[in-house]
Amino acid sequence: MKAPNRLNFSGGPGALPESVLLQAREAMIEVPEIGLSVLGISHRSDWFAAVVAELEANIRGLLELPPDYHVLLLQGGATQQFSMLPMSLLRGKAHPADYVHSGYWSGKAIPEARREGPVRVLWSGESDGFRRLPGDDELHCSAQAPYLHYVSNETVEGVQFHRVLGRDDVPRVCDMSSDFLSGPCAAERLSFIYAHAQKNIGPAGVTVVLMRDELLKAAPNDLPAFLDYRRHAEAHSNYNTPPVFAIYVVLLVTRWLSGEIGGLARMGEINRTKADRLYRLLDSSDGFYRGRAETGNRSLMNVVFNLPTAELEREFLAAASAAGFSGLAGHRAIGGVRASIYNALSLSAVDELAGFMDDFQRRRAAGRSVP
Amino acid sequence: MKAPNRLNFSGGPGALPESVLLQAREAMIEVPEIGLSVLGISHRSDWFAAVVAELEANIRGLLELPPDYHVLLLQGGATQQFSMLPMSLLRGKAHPADYVHSGYWSGKAIPEARREGPVRVLWSGESDGFRRLPGDDELHCSAQAPYLHYVSNETVEGVQFHRVLGRDDVPRVCDMSSDFLSGPCAAERLSFIYAHAQKNIGPAGVTVVLMRDELLKAAPNDLPAFLDYRRHAEAHSNYNTPPVFAIYVVLLVTRWLSGEIGGLARMGEINRTKADRLYRLLDSSDGFYRGRAETGNRSLMNVVFNLPTAELEREFLAAASAAGFSGLAGHRAIGGVRASIYNALSLSAVDELAGFMDDFQRRRAAGRSVP
Repeated sequence: MKAPNRLNFSGGPGALPESVLLQAREAMIEVPEIGLSVLGISHRSDWFAAVVAELEANIRGLLELPPDYHVLLLQGGATQQFSMLPMSLLRGKAHPADYVHSGYWSGKAIPEARREGPVRVLWSGESDGFRRLPGDDELHCSAQAPYLHYVSNETVEGVQFHRVLGRDDVPRVCDMSSDFLSGPCAAERLSFIYAHAQKNIGPAGVTVVLMRDELLKAAPNDLPAFLDYRRHAEAHSNYNTPPVFAIYVVLLVTRWLSGEIGGLARMGEINRTKADRLYRLLDSSDGFYRGRAETGNRSLMNVVFNLPTAELEREFLAAASAAGFSGLAGHRAIGGVRASIYNALSLSAVDELAGFMDDFQRRRAAGRSVP
Repeated sequence: MKAPNRLNFSGGPGALPESVLLQAREAMIEVPEIGLSVLGISHRSDWFAAVVAELEANIRGLLELPPDYHVLLLQGGATQQFSMLPMSLLRGKAHPADYVHSGYWSGKAIPEARREGPVRVLWSGESDGFRRLPGDDELHCSAQAPYLHYVSNETVEGVQFHRVLGRDDVPRVCDMSSDFLSGPCAAERLSFIYAHAQKNIGPAGVTVVLMRDELLKAAPNDLPAFLDYRRHAEAHSNYNTPPVFAIYVVLLVTRWLSGEIGGLARMGEINRTKADRLYRLLDSSDGFYRGRAETGNRSLMNVVFNLPTAELEREFLAAASAAGFSGLAGHRAIGGVRASIYNALSLSAVDELAGFMDDFQRRRAAGRSVP
């Protein structure tokens, strides 16, 4: 049986809303208002300028962003931001930036930042296998740091900060690649947010950067043009040819968020309901399904768990795949099982997965093989 | 009247083959062999590894590339390569790299290279308005240069080198963004080729880099990971999440080139026939249509011309648009008219444009207004 899009629990690139996929399909041949394939429309056209303007306005509206933020659409993923950010904000600084090492992705950001300037690892969950996140009493943020960097949601380990970290007098930089626009996030307390699109808001190939104007002004003047946020801001994300199609799809997703869903507060409620459904199942499974993260640090986006043995995990994944669920294998770095339940993954799809998991456990308990 | 895709003469992102657009449309909902939307398939899936492997093999096959070339699929466009290349091959060098300044795009590459190391401008066509290209007797290439850089086709001015430049003992680096895979190109004589996709081979958002292994080895060790060609080569273009959809479309275009078209020699013939059709029309128009480039340096990709007055140009562009042709306005840097006739633009579409141009001229000559 083929796995339909609606049961795509992939860690990313992930599921997108059905209505967005249908519009993207139409746009392959003809964008309604233009009569051309979206793949062949000039990035210098009035149409594309309007796409960028509307997307920027939608993001501002959804997040209630104060006017002094720039909204940039870049290439290169979060990985490019791991370097591009410290090139602008850390080069030549005497005081180190504070970095929180909460999992696989924050761990990727740190060595790239070190190439550009001084870094202090404020806290690391490595010795605990990144199963828990620090409390505020464990984070001694420096008042001299050029910025504090953290990853709001770690997709690999399935841990998520449910609060804003740091001090009000030091710019907060947050990699929100895997929970951007998944709910309200108090964006106005963060000076810099970056997020690649391929979890909650679009296809791989475009990255959203939100930054306060004061950070933009602080950047050095000798950067390569394509790594200089100012060039992108001045050119309204059209400094060089942007990924037109990926940006168009992100626009469609923001329209879906505002329209069909009804805004970020509602999206956040739906996402919490989905996650609660699965975590309740783990907690009531008598240790058959073993949640990886500490209860208070559980991710609403990536429900990561193990089964009693590696063999049972393989059996579970094979049976899930045969039943039409896709993308459930854990990240290659740690294995196990991961159900990624980004914005577009519906509550009914989560219910189906929960039903399958219940059934799988009951059949195992009864000593019967899983069909 | 709406302009259909087949009459899309845009300078880029440009037209793509109808059969490719139809497959891309299908893939929005379901890639046949996977049953998922192409936008939601993991970049770590076997399917995507096979896409990258087949695309790499297709490019090698089409260009008859020797085995010591790496084929990389990157983000950031040619603009990123303007910096990334000299970061790897020019930093810390005593002798300058030779750069040919043949038009708008080679002019963009030079200041970015200068940030990274010494650059000598070997020749510049600026004083001639970039209407002509240098002969070999004008190019005194240094034997000490780390490399020679040139742009094979200048899209803005419509000039194209129809030969390989430089010396065999100095690596040749060629920006082929606007004529890559438009015909045979003696790739084995070039040590480094880069080309963004959005002219002849795909949508905006992915850039092909071909480089000899000896250049890869020569790069410094302290580059940010995402700017280090070695990381991308080791990871088979999957170091960080690549633009899956854009890469998939480039694969479809290479299949079309090998299959429907029948290879690069045939593609080159078709492209020459298309360009000849338009240039013959310019030459026989008694000065009504005035080709911008010198005859021997004319581009097969971008036919750039003027009309006797700016008012006539505006009238021409409005009439062409009303007749269903799109993308004919010249680049914002120089104005005028530009017919971009990349791979996917058919001979019959060129014939239609030629017919329209003939008609426009006759009506003007007869003193009648153009309908």
